Amino acid sequence: MSFAFTLHETDGPARLGEIRTPHGLVHTPAFMPVGTQGAVKAMRHVDLEAIGAEIILGNTYHLFLRPGDELIARRGGLHAFIGWTRPILTDSGGYQVFSLAARRDVTEAGARFRSHLDGTQHLLTPERAVDIQARLGSDIAMVLDECLGYPAARDAVAESMQRSLRWAGRCRERMRELRAGGSHRIPVTNPGQAQFGIVQGGVFEDLRHESAAATVAIGFEGYAIGGLSVGEPTGVMYDIVETTARRLPERQPRYLMGTGTPEDLVECVARGIDMFDCVMPTRNARNGQLFTSEGRINIKNARYAEDDRPLDARCACYTCRTHSRAYLRHLYMAGEMTAGALNTLHNLSFYLDTMRKIREAISLRAFEKFRQEFLRSASRLSPDS
Amino acid sequence: MSFAFTLHETDGPARLGEIRTPHGLVHTPAFMPVGTQGAVKAMRHVDLEAIGAEIILGNTYHLFLRPGDELIARRGGLHAFIGWTRPILTDSGGYQVFSLAARRDVTEAGARFRSHLDGTQHLLTPERAVDIQARLGSDIAMVLDECLGYPAARDAVAESMQRSLRWAGRCRERMRELRAGGSHRIPVTNPGQAQFGIVQGGVFEDLRHESAAATVAIGFEGYAIGGLSVGEPTGVMYDIVETTARRLPERQPRYLMGTGTPEDLVECVARGIDMFDCVMPTRNARNGQLFTSEGRINIKNARYAEDDRPLDARCACYTCRTHSRAYLRHLYMAGEMTAGALNTLHNLSFYLDTMRKIREAISLRAFEKFRQEFLRSASRLSPDS
Repeated sequence: MSFAFTLHETDGPARLGEIRTPHGLVHTPAFMPVGTQGAVKAMRHVDLEAIGAEIILGNTYHLFLRPGDELIARRGGLHAFIGWTRPILTDSGGYQVFSLAARRDVTEAGARFRSHLDGTQHLLTPERAVDIQARLGSDIAMVLDECLGYPAARDAVAESMQRSLRWAGRCRERMRELRAGGSHRIPVTNPGQAQFGIVQGGVFEDLRHESAAATVAIGFEGYAIGGLSVGEPTGVMYDIVETTARRLPERQPRYLMGTGTPEDLVECVARGIDMFDCVMPTRNARNGQLFTSEGRINIKNARYAEDDRPLDARCACYTCRTHSRAYLRHLYMAGEMTAGALNTLHNLSFYLDTMRKIREAISLRAFEKFRQEFLRSASRLSPDS
Repeated sequence: MSFAFTLHETDGPARLGEIRTPHGLVHTPAFMPVGTQGAVKAMRHVDLEAIGAEIILGNTYHLFLRPGDELIARRGGLHAFIGWTRPILTDSGGYQVFSLAARRDVTEAGARFRSHLDGTQHLLTPERAVDIQARLGSDIAMVLDECLGYPAARDAVAESMQRSLRWAGRCRERMRELRAGGSHRIPVTNPGQAQFGIVQGGVFEDLRHESAAATVAIGFEGYAIGGLSVGEPTGVMYDIVETTARRLPERQPRYLMGTGTPEDLVECVARGIDMFDCVMPTRNARNGQLFTSEGRINIKNARYAEDDRPLDARCACYTCRTHSRAYLRHLYMAGEMTAGALNTLHNLSFYLDTMRKIREAISLRAFEKFRQEFLRSASRLSPDS
């Protein structure tokens, strides 16, 4: 089974669809839990499946450094290595090179960096990013792009966007060669792998338009919007998402990288986005920050010490079915690993439930009503805000 | 439903039985995973139930200090607080006072100690140990005893054993008062709670006999053997277990505290023990030390980096069904919490499987044959030894 996207329904800009991959279907709009090092932190695969995660994200930078893409290829690819049978998307490694690596030096060739683990020096070129992901065998691979922070000067953003475009062209060319069975001796562990381009251009609408047009001209199986959620105001992010999504092909999936809060998901579905990933539900869970239908809870708060209610009375996850806020607070305060597991299970359930509700609302052509009710509920004063 | 022990079958000194508690049945010989602070580390309750844990242990010392036995009583007891519906045994808190507390001063009244958490000073008397456990509402409560290390001089052991006997008498008297609805204003959250006495006497056979006789004379619902697995040679431990178990009533359960390796479980069932607890399967799992039917594995070892086999081909646990040694090594080396969860699930499955095999062998009156085969397999040179 190779890659395909089917658009089932639209409700304004909001879209209901389905991505077919070599490892099965993903219903969109979809949220992808982040499995940085081949595991979604504090979760087992069976738990992810139970709460309806249809696709997870793997970080190429981390897997390249440890245990190494060649070791993973010898195991038959990332799916076989980690024992996850559903779809996987991998990023290009670029984002972590820019945010995590000890030192980095970006030239036209690519990004030279030192590992944050052991200081070893590596060169990540566009071609190498494609090769590494071919070895990993994810269902969706991303092109290498350059990520700037916010704020960044227009000139710098324009220059970086142009370089990302040249890199995207090189990535696509390398992908074509691999698909043609070229002589690169790269073990392609998933011949049905799709490749997504990434639109850059910071918060500058015209640069985003230019990047979108040029990326689409190269031609990919899907398109991502990168370089957002890096510190810009939320309203600016929404505007850039809206204007960029409009320039992307209707019949291909649109992925907003690294976003966001539950409200962000709803607001960006409202602007035509199909796919999301974010560490927020998992990272916040480990820090005791929990999402509920009545606002956010900081489980450390002393007010929960004798609170016998579930985290979220409207949530059907194992944590909410089984445990009280008082117990979850105790586990957190006592430093028990189980706190991370139970909190992560809840936060991811909340995110995936939100996506299910979004899909249901679009299928009923009632997305705008859902959106307004969701935002009203989310904007209610959180007990811990 | 109140406490009762039924002895179904014996095969030499090995015993097959059943403990009835207010929260359900425990098939013996039984292993109790240790849920120190109201959670078995890295496990959710549903995972424990799935692998057949029928009873868990809670540590009174920890729960008394955080979140506090009074808070737990206000929640309705430990079962209600933590959401575990099956039986729970609580220790008296004494062992941790002796091993963990910042300072301690033992007198006839009890043990004065400072919390290892915040330095606050507390006095744990025999009566208070009973009261705290009454608030916790465990199904089986233990008397407060004094634990000496190994080696200890005979005189010191004799003196300590005599004090433990006097404390046991005071514990039993307090229990009688609580059961009679005395005026202590202690919320008894589990009226069917049983109380076990503890035999002390170190490695001195005559002291063990004296302690056993005197403890049985006080009269409890069951009897534990304490003060072993504290550094004495394994053979000495087995001998003391054997000679002590013989002096305990046939129709009541016998609990060996804090032991041990899988081989220890088999060897002590062979000497008449019905119940065990130990942190070894859970603690070792978090340190990458895994028990298998072919010996122990240290998953950190580089030899497993490309080993695609399951941890234990004969194990049916989720970890062994789903993951390779190569992936488990990767998770461990990468510091993923999921490593602790998957390893703990396997080690506890191995322990609980061992107990099921022990019970099956006794029911077939083939325990001696099982024991010899188990020890032959366990003594095989471990790949990592």
